[in-house]
Amino acid sequence: MAVERLVVVGGDAAGMAAASQARRLRGPEELEIVAFERTRHTSYSACGIPYWVGGQVTGAEELVARTPEEHRARGIDLRIRTEVTELDPAGRRVRARDLESGEEYWTGYDRLVLATGARPVRPALPGIDADGVHGVQTLDDGQALLDTLERTAGRRAVVVGAGYIGVEMAEALVRRGFEVTVLHRGDQPMSTLDPDMGALVHGAMNAMGIRTVAGAEVTEIRTEKTVDDGSGTGNGTGGRVREVVTADGTRYPADVVVLGIGVEPRTELARAAGLPLGPSGGLLTDLSMRVRGYEDVWAGGDCVEVLDLVAGRTRYVPLGTHANKHGQVIGSGVGGGYATFPGVVGTAVSKVCELEIARTGLRERDAREAGLRFVTAVIRSTNTAGYYPGAAEMTVKMLAELRTGRLLGVQIVGGAGAAKRVDAAAVALTAGMTVEQVVALDLGYAPPFSPVWDPVLVAARKAVAAVRAAGA
Amino acid sequence: MAVERLVVVGGDAAGMAAASQARRLRGPEELEIVAFERTRHTSYSACGIPYWVGGQVTGAEELVARTPEEHRARGIDLRIRTEVTELDPAGRRVRARDLESGEEYWTGYDRLVLATGARPVRPALPGIDADGVHGVQTLDDGQALLDTLERTAGRRAVVVGAGYIGVEMAEALVRRGFEVTVLHRGDQPMSTLDPDMGALVHGAMNAMGIRTVAGAEVTEIRTEKTVDDGSGTGNGTGGRVREVVTADGTRYPADVVVLGIGVEPRTELARAAGLPLGPSGGLLTDLSMRVRGYEDVWAGGDCVEVLDLVAGRTRYVPLGTHANKHGQVIGSGVGGGYATFPGVVGTAVSKVCELEIARTGLRERDAREAGLRFVTAVIRSTNTAGYYPGAAEMTVKMLAELRTGRLLGVQIVGGAGAAKRVDAAAVALTAGMTVEQVVALDLGYAPPFSPVWDPVLVAARKAVAAVRAAGA
Repeated sequence: MAVERLVVVGGDAAGMAAASQARRLRGPEELEIVAFERTRHTSYSACGIPYWVGGQVTGAEELVARTPEEHRARGIDLRIRTEVTELDPAGRRVRARDLESGEEYWTGYDRLVLATGARPVRPALPGIDADGVHGVQTLDDGQALLDTLERTAGRRAVVVGAGYIGVEMAEALVRRGFEVTVLHRGDQPMSTLDPDMGALVHGAMNAMGIRTVAGAEVTEIRTEKTVDDGSGTGNGTGGRVREVVTADGTRYPADVVVLGIGVEPRTELARAAGLPLGPSGGLLTDLSMRVRGYEDVWAGGDCVEVLDLVAGRTRYVPLGTHANKHGQVIGSGVGGGYATFPGVVGTAVSKVCELEIARTGLRERDAREAGLRFVTAVIRSTNTAGYYPGAAEMTVKMLAELRTGRLLGVQIVGGAGAAKRVDAAAVALTAGMTVEQVVALDLGYAPPFSPVWDPVLVAARKAVAAVRAAGA
Repeated sequence: MAVERLVVVGGDAAGMAAASQARRLRGPEELEIVAFERTRHTSYSACGIPYWVGGQVTGAEELVARTPEEHRARGIDLRIRTEVTELDPAGRRVRARDLESGEEYWTGYDRLVLATGARPVRPALPGIDADGVHGVQTLDDGQALLDTLERTAGRRAVVVGAGYIGVEMAEALVRRGFEVTVLHRGDQPMSTLDPDMGALVHGAMNAMGIRTVAGAEVTEIRTEKTVDDGSGTGNGTGGRVREVVTADGTRYPADVVVLGIGVEPRTELARAAGLPLGPSGGLLTDLSMRVRGYEDVWAGGDCVEVLDLVAGRTRYVPLGTHANKHGQVIGSGVGGGYATFPGVVGTAVSKVCELEIARTGLRERDAREAGLRFVTAVIRSTNTAGYYPGAAEMTVKMLAELRTGRLLGVQIVGGAGAAKRVDAAAVALTAGMTVEQVVALDLGYAPPFSPVWDPVLVAARKAVAAVRAAGA
């Protein structure tokens, strides 16, 4: 039997988990594995960058789960600083460029894994490429930001966007001693929550000294050059960032700007090669993570769309935990085994200072988009028994479908233990439970951990009543 | 329509939740509610007593969710310090004794709720009734123990039993400045876990200065009188506790003894009246918490057995959270509504010092008793991303059924966030998921809350492999 060749494009979570799992199933005498990675790093935690920037994690190396050398030691031909520049699915080959030498070459494959990841959204604004304007997706991005923070005398930081990354970066910059202003478009930060829940996050951000500006549409980033000579000719090119301008003309002085507007799938090569993309631009795969219509191409991680089990459609949900699962599933598939990734329910957790933030399933907006009619219930409770020392407030919002009472989504904001409480709801969503079934769940109770009715159950009780009250 | 009368026996969680819910559904013009309670307290948290004894909660009143006065204000004829001494289901009446006046009287009912609770197991040992030997089930028990601690000059405490109550009381006594010895029969404390997991609890107890003695069978409690005159005639009667003697003859000096051997259902009246009891002595009910075979009698809380959904049999699981749900379900039923309590999966959480302890579903022993064949997987991980500051170890044990791969049980011991992680597993158990389905669950991930593979998912991956390796 001839040795087959597996080519992996992208050396972070999904790609290297796939390579590692394939290697576990098939040795080098059966399967040659070539992996291409643009940066110098493999298998790192992009999600950990805010904590590195914030100083809780001391170095980039701590965020690396497995180094290039470790991968090579396991029989993977890993080529870092090498960018794949073209896919040729018909010819079963990819073209790669060595970023050090500039050399380009084609490599053939029997099986291909696309794990090209995501890039921070960079709106086409004047000045967006100025020095001191940073996205944070790769470890190189993180290092570049840290270098800017180091050499900047000024202490004014502007974060654009107030999703997970924006909020985490805002906190990191406060920890670094910066005065932070967060500019965001919506009414409330954390638009991954409904606005009524986002308002709680707003309060916590302000309490830790972060200034938030709602309804702020950034139109321009002005540099020293722009500002200094007043000619406008330097606008957007060259020079260091000096201020951020919003649609209403307000000018926010900035010594550093962090883009936290979100990320988008890095799928130009796939698009150019004619591979199927979804509405968010992510690759579309089947349940075994094989690219739809292609026998020998798999894709996973931040470059794919995933099935949202609650909304019944694909959605773009870039998250390290999904990427790792994808890699595991793909590695089993390319290694001749069997595994599937059934989809997600949209669980995400985060924190701002001591406030924990979580969601799973659909927000009101998502439910409407999915064509669902629903009721909502919001309750306030505590993370522990009310009498237990240090009991902290917790707010739970629950969405349930009209008539069926099926659980559609849960959002939680509160003190210690709030975030991971969403997991029970995520499992209930996966199982298709009704809120009546949720009320009966046997969740852990003891005074240091929960009131006698867990807050999630209290919300479910209220949701049951709301479903009933809504009638038909 | 004539006013009906609901009689409730027992004024703690299940009884008063039932009364309150019934009152919500039917006003005094439709339903008269008479509730009898032996003690002076209603609707209190027995689970909170260890924290009151330990000093984290300052007074008994904090443990009371609703006082007798509050219940009366809602139109409930609550009679405290009144003990029901006989049930007459055929005559639809109960006999009560006013513990202050000694007066006895019969009261008729249309509907009866039995919520007589539990009592601490007190083995029939010589000296068990000596001064200074305490169970902890009611607030009066808690006060009596605190009185003993107050007036005892000595600092030596012996706790008999190392289940939840024993372990929590041991910690409470350490906090009160006592030298604590825990005597328990098994190989490891916390026999609600498998011994390999209990060993982790053992280590934590020792680390906080609690001495634990395994395989210790208490045979006698000796009092000052027994010891002082050496005659043996005072053995077991009169005098204050002085030492605890085990089967091997070891004598443990004790200024106070706390019984933490567990509790048993308080069902003598039900037994005398011929109501159906299960193998643990708890009342047997249908899914609406109606006593089997009785149209007009309901029972709930610590005096009933509940359906164990995983083992497929009834089991005695006294827990405040179940009692509250029972009350809610019963109140709906007696109030003319509809609700059921489908059963439990055996979730319980606790902590010793900073170590969190959780279980759900079946231990190895339970699974064997249920006739199930299974594999186990044990993994070690961390509560947060490994690089996140303060990451603490977490051990997860998982049981999965042979062939089907169905999840059977999970035990978790570890740092912050370990205990409530069991909830996701509890929901998966309720939904009858396989460990393969568990691997795919969309649980919350962010570095401060979890490694990229949540420890529960890591355990599930190992369990999947174990199921496969075990073959048929």
